[in-house]
Amino acid sequence: MSNPNFDTKAFRNALGTFTTGVTIITTKAADGTEVGLTANSFNSVSLDPPLVLWSLAKSAMSVPVFNAAEHWNVHVLSSSQQELSGRFASRGEDKFSGLLQDKGVSSAPLLQGCAARFQCRNAFIHDGGDHIIFIGEVLDFDRNDQAPLAFHSGQYALTVPQPWEEVNLSQAEDTLACSYNEDLLGYLLGRSHFQMLSKMRSVLTEHLLQDIHFFALSVLSINDGINIEQLNTHIEYTGRCVSDAQLQHMINSNLLKKTDQCYFLTDQGRQVSLQQIAQAKAIEDELVDGLSQGEINALKLLLKQIIKRTDPGLPDLWSKVS
Amino acid sequence: MSNPNFDTKAFRNALGTFTTGVTIITTKAADGTEVGLTANSFNSVSLDPPLVLWSLAKSAMSVPVFNAAEHWNVHVLSSSQQELSGRFASRGEDKFSGLLQDKGVSSAPLLQGCAARFQCRNAFIHDGGDHIIFIGEVLDFDRNDQAPLAFHSGQYALTVPQPWEEVNLSQAEDTLACSYNEDLLGYLLGRSHFQMLSKMRSVLTEHLLQDIHFFALSVLSINDGINIEQLNTHIEYTGRCVSDAQLQHMINSNLLKKTDQCYFLTDQGRQVSLQQIAQAKAIEDELVDGLSQGEINALKLLLKQIIKRTDPGLPDLWSKVS
Repeated sequence: MSNPNFDTKAFRNALGTFTTGVTIITTKAADGTEVGLTANSFNSVSLDPPLVLWSLAKSAMSVPVFNAAEHWNVHVLSSSQQELSGRFASRGEDKFSGLLQDKGVSSAPLLQGCAARFQCRNAFIHDGGDHIIFIGEVLDFDRNDQAPLAFHSGQYALTVPQPWEEVNLSQAEDTLACSYNEDLLGYLLGRSHFQMLSKMRSVLTEHLLQDIHFFALSVLSINDGINIEQLNTHIEYTGRCVSDAQLQHMINSNLLKKTDQCYFLTDQGRQVSLQQIAQAKAIEDELVDGLSQGEINALKLLLKQIIKRTDPGLPDLWSKVS
Repeated sequence: MSNPNFDTKAFRNALGTFTTGVTIITTKAADGTEVGLTANSFNSVSLDPPLVLWSLAKSAMSVPVFNAAEHWNVHVLSSSQQELSGRFASRGEDKFSGLLQDKGVSSAPLLQGCAARFQCRNAFIHDGGDHIIFIGEVLDFDRNDQAPLAFHSGQYALTVPQPWEEVNLSQAEDTLACSYNEDLLGYLLGRSHFQMLSKMRSVLTEHLLQDIHFFALSVLSINDGINIEQLNTHIEYTGRCVSDAQLQHMINSNLLKKTDQCYFLTDQGRQVSLQQIAQAKAIEDELVDGLSQGEINALKLLLKQIIKRTDPGLPDLWSKVS
């Protein structure tokens, strides 16, 4: 049946275009050994009776154990379990060491922290070429509301749900006909930045500070003891620089002190800065109410990639000046 | 086998935590009718021989056709084919109308524009509870490098690949111990916005314009014939307002004209604005070189959601003032 003209690598790559979740399948061998492996060949089969399936390479060492198993468990991994996926995809001896388990309906290991778990009876086994297809009857299951870990084209992935209705900022009908439209990435980045920043203004106003003071205070909260030129290397990409007068304003407000041309946060300055950071985190937490943690993580990942690709060579804000 | 205590809806929701791609499966009935349906129960089975599977509800009208079919094709959908997914998930009579097809190894319809296609011989059929499991031998396949359409928890989704190495902006080791760190969403939005904007500066400088002029010109390019107060309702959320003097600067540069307190773009102003928009699009296109279109789409979707959730009630920029 083997076709010599069939390019297995290309076939594997084509199969990889189909996105999947990631599961860990576990069982317990007759001698009590806990066995587990990472699989993305899982899928649902039937609701009534409740059946699921997955397939295992005939070359896998665990074939005899799963063939003989009465039960196995499927764990659908969450996006925070990428490390666990890697652990069970390798040949390590102590895959289960240190992992907390729950008590399930069978002796098959039942891991914690997953998006969903299906405890199955090994119901049917079918031949599937170089794999064996295991069909399990689901005896029990549970679910946690967590962002899923996905897999696509050989890479782990995060998923970003597409709302049923298109998300549009404008009510106007023909915005996309406009050359400057709401789909321009620069516009979206600018508007989201300024809207987030304007939510900071109440805290800034309370401290009699403007955006530029906030930028300077933020830099100094990470890295103080620098002079105005060093400070501005972190700020000038915003199109603005902090001036001597603006720094003097913060000295007068007892937020900064100046020694040998270098600026330091006072205790009060540090406290005010912490309040501002707390406010920034509160704004972020409010957003997480509407978006999932998975979506926020995806957004941060994408923004970091944009930043890396547009970096004009900014000095590393978190590396201390020696 | 049916368990009255088994909550089918909860079971379905738990199964939904497993992310999948979306496929359309097609075949041709003996009477020549083209049959197709949307399925996410697809998965790979075997590399050698090349086998794939999917399952079909026994209640589906197309069961007799697929049972009798010698061949069927699997189409893995791309993120731009969400509409097609919906069409083949419904009971419409003319699912294939208007769709271009390619010539395949069998008479089963072969649709275009997919992420991958698998042309299969109907090799094995297994019982799967309320579903039938079809296993196909892949006779031919192809692949396009396109962002995939994914499905999770009953919603379409985009995927954002997780690079193997963590994406970090700072080389410093303990940045996350710092309360103001690179994982703060406000920081990431600000930095990506300002870096994108600073890539606009060469074009702005050439026209002797600063950021604030650019903001004003952008608003007027969509919506001119407004006075300075109306103009500033679109700008003030940036923390800055355009001044009479700044508008006068643009009148002097022959970019704007003023009639009855209202500002209009001159022909030259419109041309300069178009150049700026072209530059913004060029910056975006450069980014798309490193990120996929799917990632850019996911980023835009997420930014729009952030903007909607932080909107202080800005007037609609694209709705003309009457």
